[in-house]
Amino acid sequence: MNELLLKVDVQGSASGSYPIHITNSYANLGAKLREMSPKLIFISQKGLENVLDSFFKETGIAGGLLYLLEQGERNKHISRLADIYNWLIENRIDRKSVLVAIGGGVVGDFVGFVAATILRGVRFVQVPTTLLSAVDSSVGGKVAVNVDHGKNMVGAFYHPELVYCNVSMFQTLPDSEWACGFSEIVKHCCMEKTGKDLEFLESNIDQIRSPEILIQIVRDSAAFKASIVSEDPKELGLRSILNLGHTTAHALESITEYKQFSHGQAVSRGLVTALLLSLAKCGLSREFVERVLKLMAGLGLPMDTCGFEATDLFEHMKFDKKNTGDTIRFVLLEGQGKPVYGVPMSRDEFQTAWTQQKRRYG
Amino acid sequence: MNELLLKVDVQGSASGSYPIHITNSYANLGAKLREMSPKLIFISQKGLENVLDSFFKETGIAGGLLYLLEQGERNKHISRLADIYNWLIENRIDRKSVLVAIGGGVVGDFVGFVAATILRGVRFVQVPTTLLSAVDSSVGGKVAVNVDHGKNMVGAFYHPELVYCNVSMFQTLPDSEWACGFSEIVKHCCMEKTGKDLEFLESNIDQIRSPEILIQIVRDSAAFKASIVSEDPKELGLRSILNLGHTTAHALESITEYKQFSHGQAVSRGLVTALLLSLAKCGLSREFVERVLKLMAGLGLPMDTCGFEATDLFEHMKFDKKNTGDTIRFVLLEGQGKPVYGVPMSRDEFQTAWTQQKRRYG
Repeated sequence: MNELLLKVDVQGSASGSYPIHITNSYANLGAKLREMSPKLIFISQKGLENVLDSFFKETGIAGGLLYLLEQGERNKHISRLADIYNWLIENRIDRKSVLVAIGGGVVGDFVGFVAATILRGVRFVQVPTTLLSAVDSSVGGKVAVNVDHGKNMVGAFYHPELVYCNVSMFQTLPDSEWACGFSEIVKHCCMEKTGKDLEFLESNIDQIRSPEILIQIVRDSAAFKASIVSEDPKELGLRSILNLGHTTAHALESITEYKQFSHGQAVSRGLVTALLLSLAKCGLSREFVERVLKLMAGLGLPMDTCGFEATDLFEHMKFDKKNTGDTIRFVLLEGQGKPVYGVPMSRDEFQTAWTQQKRRYG
Repeated sequence: MNELLLKVDVQGSASGSYPIHITNSYANLGAKLREMSPKLIFISQKGLENVLDSFFKETGIAGGLLYLLEQGERNKHISRLADIYNWLIENRIDRKSVLVAIGGGVVGDFVGFVAATILRGVRFVQVPTTLLSAVDSSVGGKVAVNVDHGKNMVGAFYHPELVYCNVSMFQTLPDSEWACGFSEIVKHCCMEKTGKDLEFLESNIDQIRSPEILIQIVRDSAAFKASIVSEDPKELGLRSILNLGHTTAHALESITEYKQFSHGQAVSRGLVTALLLSLAKCGLSREFVERVLKLMAGLGLPMDTCGFEATDLFEHMKFDKKNTGDTIRFVLLEGQGKPVYGVPMSRDEFQTAWTQQKRRYG
């Protein structure tokens, strides 16, 4: 069994840090969980039966309380909270209980919010089962639910005690979803200063499903995010660079009411827009833009505009919670490892980039 | 204008502390609020029109966004959250906005929870308009909403930036509610070590509506709570002494689905039970018990059992979130200023005390 370990620093938390284990089995997780609490409560999602079989078999945990959420981002909704809160109370959750979230970003965000708020906060463990959640939502303590008027509009900063990531689970995803996991990884690579992560990804693209390679990629990508988050845990400044590609992505998700795109599918398309805008507005080199676009295509990431109009997307951006006042602001790149945030964006500028993207990728 | 100022220490918060102003006018509040943010959002409750008139007139704040909650504890419910979140987003709340909660404990708890979670946390100000909320919910950062299966089961620890308390508002309450505000104050007096707060209350009972006396009482009572909370902000131990009288109170509230008793009315009755149990189980002197019961009667606090059966109340206590496992535990008193927490309680012991209370107060 391969295993890499990453420590995430958390300013202002009681423990000061939490570990992320990146490995290719759940064998070592059972003992860790049993040590944490006699009252473990597992929360996962319908459709993850195969993952749950492996999880319970390899950890050796039998029985235990299990709650299954409905599938899909639209179920990460405030209207789903009352049911799980009442279920937890019926099942006698107490302050020593530990919630174990098994699933992708939707499960992690939702369970994290429940853990942050039930009984004013209980401990929780994240077991990310998708590539995307392993490198993104498992790091940084952002937990949230959606409301009708916007995604992740209600939430908290609340950190797990432990993240345990078994990369062999990622390959149970359909091919299209598997590829989308790389959208956040490519985003991190664009912002990593030395360029080593981008090079590693490019040079290993042919053996990207090998557990050893995957463990390394996940570790590097999570470590990059952790380094940003530990400098600015509450997103008062620097952390907002992690929204590269996300202004467009959130608009794509909200305009389709979270029904058409997974988060990874939306971020991939938004990253293309951000690269084209960075070229036009921030002097990012054409060479770098083409290099990243080539990598994204090689990874099988979706890059098209799906028939959406720039004006409609722009209207949806007005409700993004990063806005202060009426100006729409983007994160863009001035160069490899040189993100800038808070770049004001006019509708015309956005429209020009979106039209280019449409011309090129459909 | 009289004014006393109290500083509440908050471990682990960014600011480290927040001020509570206790005074008899809103005159100085307008400038403070305008300094905090250009985007002030006021949230209050139906039925408080007179208070709001004074508030806006004395602060000199005209216009501004105002949201009114429905009246009563049963509206501090998770089902009421979606509407206010969506309203805030429609009205372009951003991360520099400040929510101003004007009202009693229901408003403060609910708005505090909204502030803790909307956009993952915005600043908020508490303007307690009842005696009870001034000495209790405004100190200590406990914010919460109710779910069907229990009161305050969902919440967070989240502190206001400022509390501003105008004691002249307390007298706009009906006489019965006004009296109930003293239930938490008497509770604090029982646990204050020197006995000075209890003596001050006893010796000023005839002029208790004088602003000067009231400002002093509120300051002392809030200061006592602040001293406990600053030692144990997350209620890992010591802080739970503040639940003296509350195990019974929560059962009374939940058995009546929050429709019959205000929090103060329930705490008052629960405090009587706790005193009788302390006499029976913890060696609290009969002299002290009688002294406190006399003070409570003098203040016009309700002390009767309202026809409820001990066995039914005991059943409802099982869902109290202070429980770990199946044992029901009470906070009791060994003496003036000597609370003990986690005292296991059998149904028979509770029944004996409840029967005594019934015999004495009906």
